[in-house]
Amino acid sequence: MVKNTYMRWRLPLVCLLWEVAMIVLFGVFVRFDPEADAHWKEEQRQKNLTSDIENDFYFRYPSFQDVHVMIFVGFGFLMTFLQRYGFGAVGFNFLLAAFGIQWALLMQGWFHSFENGKILIGVENLINADFCVGSVCIAFGAILGKTSPVQLLILTLFQVTLFAVNEYILISLLHVKDAGGSMTIHTFGAYFGLTVTRILYRPNLEQSKDKQGSVYHSDLFAMIGTLYLWMYWPSFNSAVSNHGDAQHRAAINTYCSLASCVLTTVAFSSLLQKKGKLDMVHIQNATLAGGVAVGTGAEMMLTPYGSLIVGFLCGIVSTVGFVYLMPFLESKLHIQDTCGIHNLHAMPGLIGGIVGAVTAAAATEKVYGKEGLISAFDFTGDYKDRTPSVQGGFQAAGIFVSLAMALAGGAIVGAILKMPFLGDPADENCFEDDVYWEVPEDEESGLYHMHDPTLKPVTS
Amino acid sequence: MVKNTYMRWRLPLVCLLWEVAMIVLFGVFVRFDPEADAHWKEEQRQKNLTSDIENDFYFRYPSFQDVHVMIFVGFGFLMTFLQRYGFGAVGFNFLLAAFGIQWALLMQGWFHSFENGKILIGVENLINADFCVGSVCIAFGAILGKTSPVQLLILTLFQVTLFAVNEYILISLLHVKDAGGSMTIHTFGAYFGLTVTRILYRPNLEQSKDKQGSVYHSDLFAMIGTLYLWMYWPSFNSAVSNHGDAQHRAAINTYCSLASCVLTTVAFSSLLQKKGKLDMVHIQNATLAGGVAVGTGAEMMLTPYGSLIVGFLCGIVSTVGFVYLMPFLESKLHIQDTCGIHNLHAMPGLIGGIVGAVTAAAATEKVYGKEGLISAFDFTGDYKDRTPSVQGGFQAAGIFVSLAMALAGGAIVGAILKMPFLGDPADENCFEDDVYWEVPEDEESGLYHMHDPTLKPVTS
Amino acid sequence: MVKNTYMRWRLPLVCLLWEVAMIVLFGVFVRFDPEADAHWKEEQRQKNLTSDIENDFYFRYPSFQDVHVMIFVGFGFLMTFLQRYGFGAVGFNFLLAAFGIQWALLMQGWFHSFENGKILIGVENLINADFCVGSVCIAFGAILGKTSPVQLLILTLFQVTLFAVNEYILISLLHVKDAGGSMTIHTFGAYFGLTVTRILYRPNLEQSKDKQGSVYHSDLFAMIGTLYLWMYWPSFNSAVSNHGDAQHRAAINTYCSLASCVLTTVAFSSLLQKKGKLDMVHIQNATLAGGVAVGTGAEMMLTPYGSLIVGFLCGIVSTVGFVYLMPFLESKLHIQDTCGIHNLHAMPGLIGGIVGAVTAAAATEKVYGKEGLISAFDFTGDYKDRTPSVQGGFQAAGIFVSLAMALAGGAIVGAILKMPFLGDPADENCFEDDVYWEVPEDEESGLYHMHDPTLKPVTS
Repeated sequence: MVKNTYMRWRLPLVCLLWEVAMIVLFGVFVRFDPEADAHWKEEQRQKNLTSDIENDFYFRYPSFQDVHVMIFVGFGFLMTFLQRYGFGAVGFNFLLAAFGIQWALLMQGWFHSFENGKILIGVENLINADFCVGSVCIAFGAILGKTSPVQLLILTLFQVTLFAVNEYILISLLHVKDAGGSMTIHTFGAYFGLTVTRILYRPNLEQSKDKQGSVYHSDLFAMIGTLYLWMYWPSFNSAVSNHGDAQHRAAINTYCSLASCVLTTVAFSSLLQKKGKLDMVHIQNATLAGGVAVGTGAEMMLTPYGSLIVGFLCGIVSTVGFVYLMPFLESKLHIQDTCGIHNLHAMPGLIGGIVGAVTAAAATEKVYGKEGLISAFDFTGDYKDRTPSVQGGFQAAGIFVSLAMALAGGAIVGAILKMPFLGDPADENCFEDDVYWEVPEDEESGLYHMHDPTLKPVTS
Repeated sequence: MVKNTYMRWRLPLVCLLWEVAMIVLFGVFVRFDPEADAHWKEEQRQKNLTSDIENDFYFRYPSFQDVHVMIFVGFGFLMTFLQRYGFGAVGFNFLLAAFGIQWALLMQGWFHSFENGKILIGVENLINADFCVGSVCIAFGAILGKTSPVQLLILTLFQVTLFAVNEYILISLLHVKDAGGSMTIHTFGAYFGLTVTRILYRPNLEQSKDKQGSVYHSDLFAMIGTLYLWMYWPSFNSAVSNHGDAQHRAAINTYCSLASCVLTTVAFSSLLQKKGKLDMVHIQNATLAGGVAVGTGAEMMLTPYGSLIVGFLCGIVSTVGFVYLMPFLESKLHIQDTCGIHNLHAMPGLIGGIVGAVTAAAATEKVYGKEGLISAFDFTGDYKDRTPSVQGGFQAAGIFVSLAMALAGGAIVGAILKMPFLGDPADENCFEDDVYWEVPEDEESGLYHMHDPTLKPVTS
Repeated sequence: MVKNTYMRWRLPLVCLLWEVAMIVLFGVFVRFDPEADAHWKEEQRQKNLTSDIENDFYFRYPSFQDVHVMIFVGFGFLMTFLQRYGFGAVGFNFLLAAFGIQWALLMQGWFHSFENGKILIGVENLINADFCVGSVCIAFGAILGKTSPVQLLILTLFQVTLFAVNEYILISLLHVKDAGGSMTIHTFGAYFGLTVTRILYRPNLEQSKDKQGSVYHSDLFAMIGTLYLWMYWPSFNSAVSNHGDAQHRAAINTYCSLASCVLTTVAFSSLLQKKGKLDMVHIQNATLAGGVAVGTGAEMMLTPYGSLIVGFLCGIVSTVGFVYLMPFLESKLHIQDTCGIHNLHAMPGLIGGIVGAVTAAAATEKVYGKEGLISAFDFTGDYKDRTPSVQGGFQAAGIFVSLAMALAGGAIVGAILKMPFLGDPADENCFEDDVYWEVPEDEESGLYHMHDPTLKPVTS
């Protein structure tokens, strides 16, 4: 069957429609948070703030920028490992994230920053919008190379919506703590993406098998993504934590977990390979599992050695996943997971949820101090009588809610994406930039076909 | 005509001369700002500052570093898209920026930070020096691949000088607000560069046509530049705004404008191409126009939806510019604009100036608060009776002044650069690293000539 | 002699052993600093801190992240210039740094943050751990391509230990100031690495001569490393300086020194080459010497023009070192220095120590203010009677101690690394990823052998 991948009318239509909708909705709903509004001086006096430096901007902006880099360069370049899909990896990630953050500002705004009919946005909203889009970037990893940009924009629209609902249930209804998003971002995003790719199963994908690998320099480009994710993850997990010790602690715990994770990833990458050589796929991905798995617990008193243990385990789980579980998922469950997000986000996300629940349940006044305990878990207002062990239970519930939302939502959205007129590529054109991009000549006539001159440029 | 591109005596001479001059001038004039001086503790007590955190360093240093990355990695890598000019793009950008920031510290210092015969520099001066050099990087984009490093150093010397004069007229004489530099940086830098490239018109440039394109990996390198510019632009536009809400607001507005711009760039890139495929040139450049166009207005109460609208329009204008205007400029006006700065900086810069003028003119006490209005536009001292609508008029005047300075200055500097002994390359050697760099062998014997074995390495 | 480079049991064993040891030691010793502990609210009240923003996190976290990028992306990518060793450069740097920061937290903690049997860690410890690992990354540069990952992990273990001892002697016993580590990081790290590579001398290394060069794109990857090191060096030199003016000043001085250094590097790169063309090796490395050489003095009142002079000289010294000294070191002293760390770190590090000693000795109350002088050199407690000139003497002593520790330590560790079962590559397999990594096919069959089809893939 010949697929129609001609984008000329469909893609512009969706982009412009989506963006006009954003403008209208922003016009109706979005205004500045008082800390970003020109009236702030008055506000400041009322709050008895002595200095401009107490504007939330200075608490969170450096972390925001780090998170921003993770979403656009981190995820974007991590996915450039495919030899012929670098433009799609970086470019489509750019497109969906740029749309997603706008829609997330609205969706999350209605749930969390809605006052007198207006959504008031400040730097924390920007971070949360980036977080929300992070879950879409994760899902994108599962279907990388197999969808059209129109499909990706539709996916983003729905996934951001469901993300916001799930986040609202967890944070506002269950009063769950999840500052680094082990549950809301990673568990939800990964199982959502895995369900979508399951629905979009392509039985004949081996037709583009030759393009699913990397080339030398594409692996180096991917390492740019890996390192930025790895380095800035402490900012990710601490970006929306409480001011002061909580942000400080979240950064330290994440730093420790990630460091430990690198060692076990290297160990198992070598151990599980007959020739004992390291596999770039593991180094690019499994080294990050430690950051995922302390997403919930990092701001708690997980302690540095606790973080090392979590990172230690996740490096192993993730690498083993790449070697043994991934082929099994593809052959038996028909889950074609291009980037291996099951290993990097799904399993470590679940572990992160569990670590968070256990750490919360184990919290004591001795460890946190009376005030510290209340502040860490926000045991105030309606929740002032909640105990750590009850909190642990709610945290655990949050995992299941996220999982359920991801599976149900992924199934529905996957079905929507199967609609025939969305321009997805044929099996033999998957993982191929040439379908949606003007590709410079060298790629077609040179590099790629060098070692097999019988291959001809693919025409879409 | 054989060109003499031998740099051995000329380039070292200019570098050393320029640098010795810097040392002498710094020795005579440059000292630390009180906030960076060891006497600060005493200063602090006099100012009743209660904490070290109120040092301006902590308000601005994270933004400074982001701006720094934009200048050196952002602009540098954005220009690596040319297949054989990566060293020149990154390397010459590095050279001219490193010299330019020193000269800018002096020039801007004499105009703005001169006290008792000394220029006192702090973190804000570093940001402004980077800003000033940004305008040179923009101009460099127009002449990329067609000039010698000696020409670039001369260009930098003059352009920084003129930038500082223009900035002084706008900021100090006209009392114009332009924190993100739509006028001072983008309009000035772009029209300056376009005028220079017009003067340096090469009628036979098609002789190096084959090198004006990209190869697959050079396009990915360029995306590193694009993304860092895109991600850090909120820092750029907020870096020198007033402490507190103004910085906060500028970052939010820029974030919104840029997000919107990506969607319309993608839409029009696909729409304007017969095959409906996306063009990397548009993604690399037009997505950034939204940041340029809120350079003046971002710190004002432009509002998030206002920013979305600006970004929306600029994505369209910029992409249309690449497709229709650029060939016209080259064939009819003889403006050979290597990187398309007319589309990314010139037109969006003008739009940015207009947006700023309109936003200023529309400012009211209701929207800003009484105090907020005074603080936002600095209606104090000599300007305490200026009204928003008058301010709008002055803002508009700033656009014309910048334009006039750019055209006149560019014409003069272009003429200077035509002097015959500056080592510019022959037409057939343009866009070719081999002229000024030791290039590793693979490039000459391998990659580049692969698809046409009849080509021979160019010897200069 | 056939070398056994099979890593399957050895590498996992070392990784797991090292990491389990870390977990146990962290469990026994490492806890949160009060500023990162949940009891902080109480602490804060006792210290009369009025705002959360006075948590040390906000003073240092942005600088920490910049330093983090320098260690992992900066050093990692700087070393990717080799055409076939990109995976090893980025990947092994990642591995050794991830282990090293953990061990450094312990070693430095015992010396500097040990209270009541516990090491209390906060953001400053994270920075110092990164600093310590920086010295290992430097040493790695000398032996790049010639060692196994097992050897690198052993090297890291010992070098971090010795670093901490040396640092303790300098900072605590001699009361030396060295915030940017000209002595503790660069002098120590470089001479340590040079001694190790001397001990590991390979007389037949010319067998892998063809792989010691770069290819076009590997030089661009290396420029990513260069630029991040260059841009973030102001953060590096100011990261652990005193709050307020000292951090501010250190950033400005470093900015100036680096800018100046670029100009003289370009000048001498062109001057020392017959054809007058620029050499990427110089641009990638010598431009950074200015940052190394103000590592000690940047936080002092070195002044901007003083910094320019230091950068000016170091650009020259470093470039001349690459052209004349490096071949001499290899042929006469048998020091095979892959990355030229002698030119980038060793000589500029020594210069930096001297500059620091002179600047300290020249300090006066007039320049610093009474309070400023005490605060800048911490002339309190046991040191309240120390004069600037005495301080200068101790600073000079610090250089010699660092040098002695480096030479003695390097000799011992070099000898340890010669043990035969550590899996180092044969001479003809040096600078070759294929020995320790799964390398995608293109590299073996395509790119690399393109210009000489008689070459065959190397099998280890």
